[in-house]
Amino acid sequence: MAQQLSDKRDIDFVIWEQLDGEAVLENEKFDEFNRKTCELIIKEAKSIAVKELLPTMKDGDEIGVTLTKEGVKVPESFRRPFELLKEGEWAGLPIPPEMGGQGAPKVIGYVAAEQFMAANWAINCYNGMGLGTALMIQMFGTPEQRETYVKKLVAAEWGGTMLLTESDAGSDVGALTTTATRNDDGTYSITGNKIFITNGDHDLAENIIHPVLARIEGDPAGTKGISIFIVPKYLVNEDGSIGEFNDVVCTGVEEKHGIHGSATCSMAMGSKGNCKGYLLGEEREGMKIMFYMMNDARLNSGLQGLAYASAAYMEALNYARQRIQGRDLADKADRGAKPVSIIHHPDVRRNLLRMKSYVSGMRSFFYYSALVMENIEMADGDNSDDEAYLSLLTPILKDYLAVMGYEVCNQAIQVFGGAGYTKDYLVEQYARDCRIASIYEGTSGIQAMDLLGRKLGSKKGAVFARMMTEIKQSVNRAREFESLVPLAEKVDSAADRMAAVAGSLGALARSEKFKTAFAHSLPFLYAMGDVIMAWMLLWRAATASQKLAGKVKKKDLAFYEGEVKTAEFFICTEIPVTMGKLAAIEDGCSAAIDIADAGFGG
Amino acid sequence: MAQQLSDKRDIDFVIWEQLDGEAVLENEKFDEFNRKTCELIIKEAKSIAVKELLPTMKDGDEIGVTLTKEGVKVPESFRRPFELLKEGEWAGLPIPPEMGGQGAPKVIGYVAAEQFMAANWAINCYNGMGLGTALMIQMFGTPEQRETYVKKLVAAEWGGTMLLTESDAGSDVGALTTTATRNDDGTYSITGNKIFITNGDHDLAENIIHPVLARIEGDPAGTKGISIFIVPKYLVNEDGSIGEFNDVVCTGVEEKHGIHGSATCSMAMGSKGNCKGYLLGEEREGMKIMFYMMNDARLNSGLQGLAYASAAYMEALNYARQRIQGRDLADKADRGAKPVSIIHHPDVRRNLLRMKSYVSGMRSFFYYSALVMENIEMADGDNSDDEAYLSLLTPILKDYLAVMGYEVCNQAIQVFGGAGYTKDYLVEQYARDCRIASIYEGTSGIQAMDLLGRKLGSKKGAVFARMMTEIKQSVNRAREFESLVPLAEKVDSAADRMAAVAGSLGALARSEKFKTAFAHSLPFLYAMGDVIMAWMLLWRAATASQKLAGKVKKKDLAFYEGEVKTAEFFICTEIPVTMGKLAAIEDGCSAAIDIADAGFGG
Repeated sequence: MAQQLSDKRDIDFVIWEQLDGEAVLENEKFDEFNRKTCELIIKEAKSIAVKELLPTMKDGDEIGVTLTKEGVKVPESFRRPFELLKEGEWAGLPIPPEMGGQGAPKVIGYVAAEQFMAANWAINCYNGMGLGTALMIQMFGTPEQRETYVKKLVAAEWGGTMLLTESDAGSDVGALTTTATRNDDGTYSITGNKIFITNGDHDLAENIIHPVLARIEGDPAGTKGISIFIVPKYLVNEDGSIGEFNDVVCTGVEEKHGIHGSATCSMAMGSKGNCKGYLLGEEREGMKIMFYMMNDARLNSGLQGLAYASAAYMEALNYARQRIQGRDLADKADRGAKPVSIIHHPDVRRNLLRMKSYVSGMRSFFYYSALVMENIEMADGDNSDDEAYLSLLTPILKDYLAVMGYEVCNQAIQVFGGAGYTKDYLVEQYARDCRIASIYEGTSGIQAMDLLGRKLGSKKGAVFARMMTEIKQSVNRAREFESLVPLAEKVDSAADRMAAVAGSLGALARSEKFKTAFAHSLPFLYAMGDVIMAWMLLWRAATASQKLAGKVKKKDLAFYEGEVKTAEFFICTEIPVTMGKLAAIEDGCSAAIDIADAGFGG
Repeated sequence: MAQQLSDKRDIDFVIWEQLDGEAVLENEKFDEFNRKTCELIIKEAKSIAVKELLPTMKDGDEIGVTLTKEGVKVPESFRRPFELLKEGEWAGLPIPPEMGGQGAPKVIGYVAAEQFMAANWAINCYNGMGLGTALMIQMFGTPEQRETYVKKLVAAEWGGTMLLTESDAGSDVGALTTTATRNDDGTYSITGNKIFITNGDHDLAENIIHPVLARIEGDPAGTKGISIFIVPKYLVNEDGSIGEFNDVVCTGVEEKHGIHGSATCSMAMGSKGNCKGYLLGEEREGMKIMFYMMNDARLNSGLQGLAYASAAYMEALNYARQRIQGRDLADKADRGAKPVSIIHHPDVRRNLLRMKSYVSGMRSFFYYSALVMENIEMADGDNSDDEAYLSLLTPILKDYLAVMGYEVCNQAIQVFGGAGYTKDYLVEQYARDCRIASIYEGTSGIQAMDLLGRKLGSKKGAVFARMMTEIKQSVNRAREFESLVPLAEKVDSAADRMAAVAGSLGALARSEKFKTAFAHSLPFLYAMGDVIMAWMLLWRAATASQKLAGKVKKKDLAFYEGEVKTAEFFICTEIPVTMGKLAAIEDGCSAAIDIADAGFGG
């Protein structure tokens, strides 16, 4: 039977062949894992995703969540797969044992999450969203706070959230008005309203632990006056049991473009004057602590883009192989020729190969980044180089994967023609669901500002230089294979061009024309993402060529040759476009800044 | 109050300043129209669209259509605006008086339709879809058929459709299985099932006239054996009154991604052996006749893309001017600075100006094409040059406007951030509704095959050469303005490059590597669309510069200067990317054709 959600062979290829995942397993913290156990975990995750979560995806869309007097209800069909994920301790798969997790390599945790996201993102989110809260409490909480919350969150017995956004404080978090008043017992009374709160309320967990950004009375305006508080839905008694309701209420759920199975809540805290918060970390450290979680959330948004893209590509590919329509172009003069499956049509092949190139490049990029994350955790001493490197990659992992993931879903609709526009297939839901990924946890524009304003020049350019060094290593490896030499040259040129433009754009950002620089920041993020895709695909092609130089099993032959063709396709058809994007950025057109506001019309 | 749906100033600019619409009005057939009456018509259309149609757009989405025992019901709120359009004879606005229309210039008809589409596309479609049927009957019908159907269709008293698609005959129309059997009285008995029939049934019109593609028993397979029949929902008595039900039944309506207010029907004909069809034209002429209507339908799909894009841009622009969030980048060091409206943020400006450049370019391109259509009708003698020119433009008008219209809607969501993903604003519905435009009436891939296979080399290249000549004329006009010289040079180079690649791609299509050529046909269509946008924007900038050289009213100053900035933006930031697309096409990568089917994975 045709595969769904993801291509198992491709996942294996990236982890064990391209990235040498076995080297990671040599670290003593992974004593209980070997390649075989990891493969079994992935197989099991995919099996649960296909058999248990995927059949409920449409319910999420069609039934959605309902706000009742008792709070938010999820579709009934969500319960069984949610319980299965909980029982299997899937949320805690990559979490250290001391936090109640299973301590698997991060990349394995992400691969499992990718399968669940692709099958029913909302359920995976209900199951896994407590991890961000848990990690933050583990890092910044008191021993008592850790004891009270962390294991419950990792076990998905309790849910977690992020209460940041208010109606007049979205991208500008510093404008928030939620207040905290010190109580005599060391707790704080919280008052305020938040919007767009993912999983703000639901009936899958017995308690929900809200990290809440608020300003303590008298603290300064803007981000520097923000503190962060733990606000449980139900207070927790000293023995760990569930106590009183804490006056944090869902007042509405958003009607949305997609992800209808996920509750996007408006939340009111302290409307009866009775909402208690516990300070996390120090006062006025809210932004720093929140960003610790936010970076994690951003990576998950990128993974969401990859997961949907992978699933939409598989669905489109399967359809293109089955759907008979039209004659082969080679037979067009022969009116008696039999119709063929649409994968034979040139434009369908182009579209599918383009989709595949993005899915492959995004998967390699994400798993590669997961190994960087692993290095950060495994480091004995200073891990700041890896941390800075991950920070550089994060805005691209977040927004490029979100946007290109959406593009793949959108093109998947096109493969189905009219049927793709109906609800008979999942592709149209994938597109709607995926659309959120470049909006929440910081829009595209916010990611682009982060990249240009904070990350590109990080450590005087040393972080960017590390990426260039790694790209050049891949280029040199590819040059060892004659057939890859022309591709390697193109990637090399594109990387050099990207570096040059990064330099000139950075200089522009430090000049008086800084606004013009930031008007080019998002196109630069996309150009950089393109070059990273080309790098990853060239690397994959070199890995495949190495295998092809030896003895290859017949079923692997098409896979490895396909990798070479995929790299060729992307580097020859997408990278010239990237060069055009870079040329446009370098040109530095300032029309968008110079035009008068009235010139936009209206 | 801020404008909605479209920028009236921009519409006037294109018709009366860029395109010299007054010259069209000099033709004697427009004796009853002058610039003032045309402006009044546009003003009235926009007013009805904003006041009467727009308030019902959400009902279309949320209530949608319902299939009952009596047939398909539309939302109740649709009735009043539908009746208003009918009473105002809006469908017949650009239709010749001898068909019952008002005989207005085509461009005025399209501008009115654009407003209605932007406000509630479904209602406009119920109102205007009979025109395609009417035009076909007028062209190919018998005098009796004309007498019976045409005026009723033009008056929107009866609806029209297109019954082409079957479940195994979509893009491959020739595979259809609907049959026609000759009856002794000269009529035919029709038997078969069709799917994806827009407005196949509804309760706004007392009768629906279906043009149906079917194969007469014994006729050859494929497209050459197809005939077309008039199949009314209710037979029409000799006195013109409504007669018996004609055994054509809606058996289902599609659940879709968008355009929920429009009934997409499955239709069964002759399931009781009692469906009568009247041959239109000659036997086996079905494809030729259908394409007459299809070309019209394709232009309307392009207009749909423009209409949504225009409306989404206006909504995003209005929001960007009102929504206060974050400090101006120039004030970032000043923590006490007041927050500003988001139109001040560089990436928002870039996004808005990019949207504006597409809306402006698409509007100019469409209205320009409407003048070509007018010339075809106004020609005393041979109009085949204009017909061939319109044919060349049609696949680009259809797919480029559909796809870039969708892109504008999608970017409009981004301007709203999280709010854009909710149903609080119309942008998310615009995106969903717009998505259909590059699917129906021939998908993107079909348009690209049409362009490369039939249109590019039409009349030994003379048709393409005409477009090049017109582009060069605009380039030369722009060169008269010093500030436009650099932009003119860039457009000139891009056009030359496009022509060169058109030549090499055409040659490839005639070679053994024709499949590779067709794998690049859609990217070429998009590159050609880009160059046309640049041409139109340069033309607009030259027109605006001409005005700026004279005395300009204060309120026009920002508009004209904005036109120059818009052209600069597009030509300096988008055209370099287009050059990259053209380079990639010229490179002629054949990976998508060469890769083994198994290499796609799965």
